[in-house]
Amino acid sequence: MSDSAQSFNDSYWRNRIQSVFAELRELTGDGVGVTRPSYGHAETLGLEHIAAMATEAGLVVERDAAANLVVTLAGRNPELPVVATGSHMDSVPQGGNYDGAAGIVAGLMCLLRMQSEGEVPEHGIKLYGLRGEESAWFGRAYVGSSALFGELTLHDVERTHRDSGKPLRHYLQELGADVARISSGTPLLDPASIAAWYELHIEQGPTLVARHVPIGVVTGIRGNIRHFRIVCRGATGHSGAVPRWLRRDPVFALADLLVRLDEHWETLQGQGVDLVITSGVVQTNPAEHTLTRIPGEIAFSLDIRSQSEQTLEDFYQLLQSECAIVRRNRGVEFEFDEKICTAPGVIAPALAQELVGICEELQVPYIQIPSGAGHDAAVFSHHGVPSAMIFIRNEHGSHNPQESMDLEDFILGTEVLYRVLARKAGCASSRST
Amino acid sequence: MSDSAQSFNDSYWRNRIQSVFAELRELTGDGVGVTRPSYGHAETLGLEHIAAMATEAGLVVERDAAANLVVTLAGRNPELPVVATGSHMDSVPQGGNYDGAAGIVAGLMCLLRMQSEGEVPEHGIKLYGLRGEESAWFGRAYVGSSALFGELTLHDVERTHRDSGKPLRHYLQELGADVARISSGTPLLDPASIAAWYELHIEQGPTLVARHVPIGVVTGIRGNIRHFRIVCRGATGHSGAVPRWLRRDPVFALADLLVRLDEHWETLQGQGVDLVITSGVVQTNPAEHTLTRIPGEIAFSLDIRSQSEQTLEDFYQLLQSECAIVRRNRGVEFEFDEKICTAPGVIAPALAQELVGICEELQVPYIQIPSGAGHDAAVFSHHGVPSAMIFIRNEHGSHNPQESMDLEDFILGTEVLYRVLARKAGCASSRST
Repeated sequence: MSDSAQSFNDSYWRNRIQSVFAELRELTGDGVGVTRPSYGHAETLGLEHIAAMATEAGLVVERDAAANLVVTLAGRNPELPVVATGSHMDSVPQGGNYDGAAGIVAGLMCLLRMQSEGEVPEHGIKLYGLRGEESAWFGRAYVGSSALFGELTLHDVERTHRDSGKPLRHYLQELGADVARISSGTPLLDPASIAAWYELHIEQGPTLVARHVPIGVVTGIRGNIRHFRIVCRGATGHSGAVPRWLRRDPVFALADLLVRLDEHWETLQGQGVDLVITSGVVQTNPAEHTLTRIPGEIAFSLDIRSQSEQTLEDFYQLLQSECAIVRRNRGVEFEFDEKICTAPGVIAPALAQELVGICEELQVPYIQIPSGAGHDAAVFSHHGVPSAMIFIRNEHGSHNPQESMDLEDFILGTEVLYRVLARKAGCASSRST
Repeated sequence: MSDSAQSFNDSYWRNRIQSVFAELRELTGDGVGVTRPSYGHAETLGLEHIAAMATEAGLVVERDAAANLVVTLAGRNPELPVVATGSHMDSVPQGGNYDGAAGIVAGLMCLLRMQSEGEVPEHGIKLYGLRGEESAWFGRAYVGSSALFGELTLHDVERTHRDSGKPLRHYLQELGADVARISSGTPLLDPASIAAWYELHIEQGPTLVARHVPIGVVTGIRGNIRHFRIVCRGATGHSGAVPRWLRRDPVFALADLLVRLDEHWETLQGQGVDLVITSGVVQTNPAEHTLTRIPGEIAFSLDIRSQSEQTLEDFYQLLQSECAIVRRNRGVEFEFDEKICTAPGVIAPALAQELVGICEELQVPYIQIPSGAGHDAAVFSHHGVPSAMIFIRNEHGSHNPQESMDLEDFILGTEVLYRVLARKAGCASSRST
């Protein structure tokens, strides 16, 4: 071990980390936040910047057939599956500097430090700078990671860009991707060739801030059942002239339904069941609503999420039965659009336990929390790659310019990532400790 | 008494009634329903048609300084206050044939029948064909009746027409109204000169249909407390990433508030308290709402109505205290726009009792019900004229082309009106029965 005293807390690494984030912000800033469109120019700029540092350090730098960046620290035994880390470079329009990029920067720092320490691990270690994770641009999330596992379709590459209207295919070609290969369902790698996927990401919720801990070890990635539009239909009427017993008021009916769901939610939560429910869009019909009329209908969206597929299905049944009660009690009807389901992403319990152990060794304060948002890690996990995630405390949520991650927290998280990669890949430093 | 056997059920009167409604529909139809704009051409056509029939029958026909139609059956004693009846001729855009006009037609039929019977009552009887009752056109309701009592202001006559943008003043002038006089707050009549105001009107709610009775004797006209826009503000967040305990979800908060109000409403109703509550407009912010985001705010309207001013104020206090509880429990804020109050319209109990007595004499099925909508009768009542209303069963509510009143029900209601006018005015026929 060339320098066992190294730590990301050293001023050298602190400065490098600060510089990289500043440079990424500089390269891809939009005046308000950062904008790195999926398979767009700023995403490429960000990845090129990472690639340049890796190349300079003597790491192996490649682009895969989906134009993802792949940086490799070769292992002693090329027959062994590699250990992989990374995240995505793209952002939403006017997003923040950390959602996605933090995981790439953390992985890069780990590889640079191993390289500077002269580490040659048993297993190779690969850093993925993924593209196209955000659905904001082509209406399809996880493009880069999905391509790895042959999950993209011809339909996907014909999806059009929100601003230019050009298909994803066009952007892929410009970046030298092998469109024919990735849109034919051909995997770019064998899941068995990856021993584990570790993804560091800012927390997109407020839990770590509220609990005053820098690090979250992710227990699972919530799946969801969604309806974009459920319409509750009643009967219009004069607001003054219809007595309560003759009303079929869809607004009071929806209120009744939501309070019923909220009560179940509260009960289930008390039993330790993982669940969140959101009705993000609620609207009486603007074409006819007015102060003095009982509205004929109210439309609302519903996003039910849980780490447990069983919980999702159970709660959906509960939704149906509560709708039936409200329908009977209040003379309304509920009309559902397509039910959209996304399965939860499974975090490998052994890997999460390993992260917990490392946090305790390093005396890094942590809690175990679910991930409410989806991540590339879920794609790896769905394809059989044991996966785990490290969350970094972050104020003000993500997908906005106010994302706020402390350097100190990032350093702690990256130290945890370093330790787990080193141990998993069989680095000399980890064997000696 | 020239013909004591007359009744509106006679084929002569049935035919006349049917014809008048058909002619009004013909004159003012818009292809979908009827459209009789306040102080507009079709309103005038309708009133002219009524005036022509009155003139032909030898009744005294005038227009007052607000261009209302006034038809008089002179009484024996001109010193005595007159008995008055009528309603308004205007309709909402694409409204129905009966909301307003039914009360004028009923009054006209009563005067024509008295005239044909050679009645000379003690008190004169006046039929008012009022203008401008609907707020749809100039944003001001009860223009014609308000003018009678000197209640119009300079501000009111400058209000602009929803389509033409021209001020009410322009329309008044075109119709020969004395704009200077009516906008100066000068009453056109002394409230003491009217012994009583009787207004027949279709019910705008569904109660008579639901209760299977043709006639409602109105007990009071609900006043209201309104807010066009209350905003419930919480905190936006990722729909998957914010646990229940950290949410400040304005949608669930509003649902909670509405269910609390609904529970009070149910309780109060069980105690016989008159109350209706409507939230006609409900909307998350379209500029930012989306399926996967806890919305930052939801806006809603509130229309609380009751015949009792005390109930209105008490319920408003209840609203405030429930908002305070929801605010505390759910970390949201409520922001209220201007509180708009309209006092309930008082129905003279003795007059309502008289109508009840007549219904029983005539064996007309009736119930006593509140009026949820406002009416010109409330303006008369506010100015000290003892007032009462007869509601006629009507399906599908009002303010729409589907208004549906049975001729049979109208005949029963007009018979009741005839009897009360005759008795109040001291007709020979009523003295002899």
